[in-house]
Amino acid sequence: MAPTVGGGSLLVAWQLKGKNILIVGGGEVASQRIDSLLTTDAHLVVVSPNVGLNPRTKQFIEEHPDRITYHDRSFSGVEELDAMDMVLTALDDVELSRNICIMSRNAHIPVNAADIPDSCDFYFGSQIRDGPLQIMISTNGNGPRMANLVKRKLQKALSGFEGQTITKVGALRTQLKIRAPGVGGELGKRRMKWMTNLCNAWKEEELALMDDTMMQKLLDDGWENDCVPSFSKVGGSRRLNISRCPAIAPTLGFFAGALCTLLVVLVRRR
Amino acid sequence: MAPTVGGGSLLVAWQLKGKNILIVGGGEVASQRIDSLLTTDAHLVVVSPNVGLNPRTKQFIEEHPDRITYHDRSFSGVEELDAMDMVLTALDDVELSRNICIMSRNAHIPVNAADIPDSCDFYFGSQIRDGPLQIMISTNGNGPRMANLVKRKLQKALSGFEGQTITKVGALRTQLKIRAPGVGGELGKRRMKWMTNLCNAWKEEELALMDDTMMQKLLDDGWENDCVPSFSKVGGSRRLNISRCPAIAPTLGFFAGALCTLLVVLVRRR
Repeated sequence: MAPTVGGGSLLVAWQLKGKNILIVGGGEVASQRIDSLLTTDAHLVVVSPNVGLNPRTKQFIEEHPDRITYHDRSFSGVEELDAMDMVLTALDDVELSRNICIMSRNAHIPVNAADIPDSCDFYFGSQIRDGPLQIMISTNGNGPRMANLVKRKLQKALSGFEGQTITKVGALRTQLKIRAPGVGGELGKRRMKWMTNLCNAWKEEELALMDDTMMQKLLDDGWENDCVPSFSKVGGSRRLNISRCPAIAPTLGFFAGALCTLLVVLVRRR
Repeated sequence: MAPTVGGGSLLVAWQLKGKNILIVGGGEVASQRIDSLLTTDAHLVVVSPNVGLNPRTKQFIEEHPDRITYHDRSFSGVEELDAMDMVLTALDDVELSRNICIMSRNAHIPVNAADIPDSCDFYFGSQIRDGPLQIMISTNGNGPRMANLVKRKLQKALSGFEGQTITKVGALRTQLKIRAPGVGGELGKRRMKWMTNLCNAWKEEELALMDDTMMQKLLDDGWENDCVPSFSKVGGSRRLNISRCPAIAPTLGFFAGALCTLLVVLVRRR
């Protein structure tokens, strides 16, 4: 692992609900940008002549008329930036792209220009999403290919339960805040400690399997008595997940080996 | 996996080189913010009475006098925001925190208030860093505990080679751009295709082991002839990584089983 000081970016989860985003261009990169931005609840404005739209961009525009305003023309000038909160260019015309960056920066609007890293206020990275869970992989401008390689590795490491677990833990946290309201202070610390203890004590699958009844029981018997009841104590039950047990493969191998040798010995005895 | 439309954030890698960041507060959360921001090459201004500094914040201030300007006082008013590009609050005083958010928003400065998600323009997430590789895990406000759980899983899935591999691939890409310069167009596409083919054809450890001589040979023999030479062809050599081979465990099990059975049979024969 390399040292953490300097040379990196600040990775953040930007909240764009209700914000206006301008996308100049309609090709493949634009379609990737639209895909990322549909994740948020922003309103998108796409400016590109129809001939420049790739099939995926077209599909997004058709499927989300409430989320995307489309203008069938080229970028017309600085007035396009009025009321925009973010600007993205995805153009083959590098000169125009750089000009739009300068205009945006003058107007204090964050800007990203595809393929011109030195003109960008921020970079996109490879992303993984599972419900409320979002993971971003950034190589700090060292190429999307490597980001995708790392992405595939990380995808394999995820069980697929994570999104559901986070949703359930979030729901419990919301209910706990209703029962014991307030921001910060001693109560805030006690809430955080109790949630942490629960997440440490229960397995991920157990957290994912929480239902409303169990949450109520957890709060009544657990939070009120300052303890963390077990999964089964609040009425949970689950099946054994064989694929998760690392001892299975060598054990199966052991018995296969024993059986084969036994057969060989028996055959040779005859 | 949940659907990708709506309810999420835009995950971005923010470029803060040379920017001014105001951090109001000096406790534990402030120290985490400083740690994240030292990753970037931003200049930090920390405003907090000395009694409110936690040991880690103090250490950062002492160790990085060139990166952090420290003011031993409380937040004094809106003039503190002059020339700031980003504002972070890490205060127990929720009222003051909310006020700073309003002032920042009025001045079009992105703001994050610790523990008050509805006042934030962006969230921080759990992060992993290995040189140029940065990974962020965000639960979209559903709790840092779950983000840490996912982080530990992802850390286990990484080989530790990723940072070095990305650095080497980035260096090769830079050399390729010197040899075949220009932004976009047919040449840009050919460059991208060749880099992709290389990353697909070579193993991660092989890419991490590239040295200058090998890079030159790759460009001379590979790029110039529009092909991707193998790792050994450009002079690379590497050791077999046994721990990466998933067949090892059951195979060892098989032989252990065979040996045990053989011993039992032999003992019973006597």
